[in-house]
Amino acid sequence: MIVIMKTDATPSQLTNVVALIEQMGGQAHLSRGEERTLIGIIGNGRPFDPDRIEQMDGVEKTMPVLRPFKRASREFHPQDTLVTVGDVVVGGSQITLIAGPCAVESRDQLIEIASAVKERGAQMLRGGAFKPRTSPYSFQGLGEEGLRILAEARDVTGLPIVTEVIQPELVPLVTSYADVVQIGARNMQNFALLHAVGQAQCPVLLKRGMMSTVEELLMAAEYILSHGNTRVILCERGIRTFETYTRNTLDISAVPLLKQLTHLPVIVDPSHGTGKWELVAPVSRAAVAAGADGLIVEVHTHPDQALSDGSQSLKPETFADLVASLRKVAVAVGRTA
Amino acid sequence: MIVIMKTDATPSQLTNVVALIEQMGGQAHLSRGEERTLIGIIGNGRPFDPDRIEQMDGVEKTMPVLRPFKRASREFHPQDTLVTVGDVVVGGSQITLIAGPCAVESRDQLIEIASAVKERGAQMLRGGAFKPRTSPYSFQGLGEEGLRILAEARDVTGLPIVTEVIQPELVPLVTSYADVVQIGARNMQNFALLHAVGQAQCPVLLKRGMMSTVEELLMAAEYILSHGNTRVILCERGIRTFETYTRNTLDISAVPLLKQLTHLPVIVDPSHGTGKWELVAPVSRAAVAAGADGLIVEVHTHPDQALSDGSQSLKPETFADLVASLRKVAVAVGRTA
Amino acid sequence: MIVIMKTDATPSQLTNVVALIEQMGGQAHLSRGEERTLIGIIGNGRPFDPDRIEQMDGVEKTMPVLRPFKRASREFHPQDTLVTVGDVVVGGSQITLIAGPCAVESRDQLIEIASAVKERGAQMLRGGAFKPRTSPYSFQGLGEEGLRILAEARDVTGLPIVTEVIQPELVPLVTSYADVVQIGARNMQNFALLHAVGQAQCPVLLKRGMMSTVEELLMAAEYILSHGNTRVILCERGIRTFETYTRNTLDISAVPLLKQLTHLPVIVDPSHGTGKWELVAPVSRAAVAAGADGLIVEVHTHPDQALSDGSQSLKPETFADLVASLRKVAVAVGRTA
Amino acid sequence: MIVIMKTDATPSQLTNVVALIEQMGGQAHLSRGEERTLIGIIGNGRPFDPDRIEQMDGVEKTMPVLRPFKRASREFHPQDTLVTVGDVVVGGSQITLIAGPCAVESRDQLIEIASAVKERGAQMLRGGAFKPRTSPYSFQGLGEEGLRILAEARDVTGLPIVTEVIQPELVPLVTSYADVVQIGARNMQNFALLHAVGQAQCPVLLKRGMMSTVEELLMAAEYILSHGNTRVILCERGIRTFETYTRNTLDISAVPLLKQLTHLPVIVDPSHGTGKWELVAPVSRAAVAAGADGLIVEVHTHPDQALSDGSQSLKPETFADLVASLRKVAVAVGRTA
Repeated sequence: MIVIMKTDATPSQLTNVVALIEQMGGQAHLSRGEERTLIGIIGNGRPFDPDRIEQMDGVEKTMPVLRPFKRASREFHPQDTLVTVGDVVVGGSQITLIAGPCAVESRDQLIEIASAVKERGAQMLRGGAFKPRTSPYSFQGLGEEGLRILAEARDVTGLPIVTEVIQPELVPLVTSYADVVQIGARNMQNFALLHAVGQAQCPVLLKRGMMSTVEELLMAAEYILSHGNTRVILCERGIRTFETYTRNTLDISAVPLLKQLTHLPVIVDPSHGTGKWELVAPVSRAAVAAGADGLIVEVHTHPDQALSDGSQSLKPETFADLVASLRKVAVAVGRTA
Repeated sequence: MIVIMKTDATPSQLTNVVALIEQMGGQAHLSRGEERTLIGIIGNGRPFDPDRIEQMDGVEKTMPVLRPFKRASREFHPQDTLVTVGDVVVGGSQITLIAGPCAVESRDQLIEIASAVKERGAQMLRGGAFKPRTSPYSFQGLGEEGLRILAEARDVTGLPIVTEVIQPELVPLVTSYADVVQIGARNMQNFALLHAVGQAQCPVLLKRGMMSTVEELLMAAEYILSHGNTRVILCERGIRTFETYTRNTLDISAVPLLKQLTHLPVIVDPSHGTGKWELVAPVSRAAVAAGADGLIVEVHTHPDQALSDGSQSLKPETFADLVASLRKVAVAVGRTA
Repeated sequence: MIVIMKTDATPSQLTNVVALIEQMGGQAHLSRGEERTLIGIIGNGRPFDPDRIEQMDGVEKTMPVLRPFKRASREFHPQDTLVTVGDVVVGGSQITLIAGPCAVESRDQLIEIASAVKERGAQMLRGGAFKPRTSPYSFQGLGEEGLRILAEARDVTGLPIVTEVIQPELVPLVTSYADVVQIGARNMQNFALLHAVGQAQCPVLLKRGMMSTVEELLMAAEYILSHGNTRVILCERGIRTFETYTRNTLDISAVPLLKQLTHLPVIVDPSHGTGKWELVAPVSRAAVAAGADGLIVEVHTHPDQALSDGSQSLKPETFADLVASLRKVAVAVGRTA
Repeated sequence: MIVIMKTDATPSQLTNVVALIEQMGGQAHLSRGEERTLIGIIGNGRPFDPDRIEQMDGVEKTMPVLRPFKRASREFHPQDTLVTVGDVVVGGSQITLIAGPCAVESRDQLIEIASAVKERGAQMLRGGAFKPRTSPYSFQGLGEEGLRILAEARDVTGLPIVTEVIQPELVPLVTSYADVVQIGARNMQNFALLHAVGQAQCPVLLKRGMMSTVEELLMAAEYILSHGNTRVILCERGIRTFETYTRNTLDISAVPLLKQLTHLPVIVDPSHGTGKWELVAPVSRAAVAAGADGLIVEVHTHPDQALSDGSQSLKPETFADLVASLRKVAVAVGRTA
């Protein structure tokens, strides 16, 4: 970290800042310019909290040199992390395809969809039992009954299941059913929840918040990693911008950027990323071409009867076409799907 | 709600949409234009979920006419809601001033600050015992020990206390100490938490998420109201934009807009809204001039030693100057402070 | 367009609105609900200006049904527009590769780069002679001397040239040299400039503004088309968001969305879209996979000596690798490169 | 500026960077840490272009210490700049009130409005003769005829006139009529236009672009100042965000921030900043309370017949109420209105 002193900082203010740095375990290295003094902090191996320093008298601002995440960083762990879920390996040469409805609505609905996506090439099944909804008057999910239906769909199809958890005290329940537990975009900075899944024995699919930077996503992963769970899959699902034709703006550059910054697998959610089923296939192809390790796609056998997200769901036959085209793109970038 | 049919929608698709609307309890009113048919839905007294309709074959899109919040709306409840906390009335003619440190750091620190802000005109004390922090390596708050210190500061100064709760299972604990429980910006759409405070017997200070619309803020309030707790205070605290000189962009227009849309009191957090203590005073005056019912301001007796948010905290003497200037602005807009 | 009347609108206010609609050449179709009256406007073949109606007494708001662009819309012109530039066809089955430096710096620099990109597979040469720069102290381009150098590079390599025009009175000069004239992101809503190139006999490469919606981009194209120039190529180059790791956020969904909404060719600028040369290749592959008709890429033989944008420029050998990988992705989506 | 070298930078790369810095007229000051070397550049009195350095081999990134604007900065010119227009002084203790219609529509309309706002306390008249409009099908202004009408309104009322110029070659014409020439938000980075008004003998009202940072606004002012025109008035008019209830998000913090960073006067446009006339009065009061030197407000005698922006225009009587309330707020913050 670099500390920029004010042009009118006094020598005693400078002395105080140096003293604090040393007290925090760092070494201060001074550069005296004509206008102001800069202090380079030689660290003690872990990130410094800039707040403590920035508020000292005489300090104008601080600027980070090192990134604030460590366990999530590729420098810390150069090899790609592979997250194994049953027979599925996320982060390897094969693109992982996760498909299913937004929400578990009934036993019949889920079994039908699960069978349909399995047959068309999905390797994992998604479906929400606990649904975070903007309105208290919208369908909130089937709860534990939904988890039981997911487990039954797994028994029938053999597909591992991915489902969301929305509060810390439900982590034991949800992880007792799920093969992968999902942290949704609205909960990416629900630190109590990150703490809870960090202590669980279950892979975590961590979605980027619609209001979150790439760095904040990696800090959220750092929470999970620092509590002992190293099986984290990151998911880019679109951020909120001024554009309103699409539900969110999918940040495609985040895919290669994340692959550069971290060793964790990175997948893409083109359904929430666009909000329109017509855009799901081209954006999915883009994601694979950009280096994504997988996709999580909403598929419904009857989108026009879906209780949520029907307008962004693919029908099984459209999903089959997508899988066929993805296989070609995967091969073009040296992978398989 | 209005349903826009596609230009090539078939008569049977139209029939199906009308049937669904009637099944959901509404009446469909058709307008056949040259190019397409529109359907006006005459409601049954409560908002319709647009998802169900939008995904039907033949439908291009739906457009809301009524707003999706009801209990929070001024049409539903024309008079201003006053939230009474001890002797303090939030939403009346007097501007409510809430002040204190970002975090409770120690007994001595809090008692000192509480006494200082009480003496300078604060009517409530703020201070975090459970802190949501972007980094797992930052100070996370003192927990229940912090709550005990807050209660002691209340005993010493007589100031009611406002403190944050960050997970549902802590609501009973936090509300057993707090006079007002705060939902932070990152938790504005933590629906399990909204549900929990909605069932509590404690006023709620609900902060707008940094990337949440005014409508989403009101829907979050609707969650709390619909679970039975009507004592909700809204707080504008800045939204995330492309501007980086300030920590957030305080949305001043949201203040009169909210006063128009809802009966709930609206306060402003100029400390998080700007992130710079030098901007806190002018922005506080702006908030009162715009019609805010109160302010929540970070004050610290030793900002340069604060464990968090020191660079946006006022010193007690600066807070005193602010209070003096606010009194003049309050009078100018027909209120008191 | 639909007009939503206020709940307390009077009959005479309604009469006035209907009269205005008819005076503007439309027919008003009323839907009287229990709470309020809606008016559907059956148009006269062209978009209505909502401002006139929205400000009438008794009107709550208006909502567009038809899109405000016409000549740019695919409904108006279902077949893809192909823009031919010399031997190059933009918008056909072959992906168009435009490459070159940010700015023309000298004769030697440009000839060297032009030859290098030609040899590696570029079909057009880019290079700025007039540079819009945020700071008045930055290099502003060589002006007409730069245009002469571009023409010479065309003579040497046979590559058609793309260069930017930044003010209306320079359009005759720039189009006397250029094969394609570029409107930069900052000038997307410089209507006098759009008007001027709309009257020119030269294809236009129109870049999306960094804070412009897809609809505004199409309205800017509509300006050019409505002044008589139908050879317009659209370019997605990233929008401004809160994310700061990348220079802009490339809106990949805009590519298939534009292909759906308009008949004009759509290309992508991955250099400005990311701001980092390491991200250019994966994002270029994503663009082609998403359906882009071409790419405009910054290439420099000595990026570390470039007078602008060096950090986002590829070296010729990296560009060659990119072209090789793009050919595979193009084939995977049924095209060539 | 500080240069951060990569962890694996070689000694010869370091030597090259130092050589370049010295060649550009600076002195390089090295700080060798355990992990990497930092270089502080001691300047030669003017801002360095970071691009040249950032793209050298071995450089990770650069970080500015000094701000990139100079003539616009308060450090360069500590006293407030007062811009005198006839009898009106912008930037002094009195708040300047500029009012009038969005567009000049006819002689009768403008004279009527000008007289109405003069009588209610306006000190300057606004009105557009050349209108930048998103759609080519919207009213584009009366052109020079509009300028003549503005001049006549000045003769009748004595109010100086503010009107917009939208292309460089019209600067001589517009400044031959105008007392203050306006650069609109969409043209804030139209550098040819900034250059042209920078050479004119006329005060400039420079509006912040809806996509522009405070720093970019100051760089745009720097363009004007560096071409010799020092009479620049800055105007905050709202930025584009994800919020859609208001037309733009007025950045109230920008007012005190600009007053801190620059010596130029700062006014606020609450009409475009909110897009809703009901919000204009409270936001105007907020602007004055935050330290704005003036307001530019849209007023129309018949908003429901306005050719543009009617829904955000005040009627004269509402404007009169606003002026009365502003006088109280101005006094509360030690000024007059």
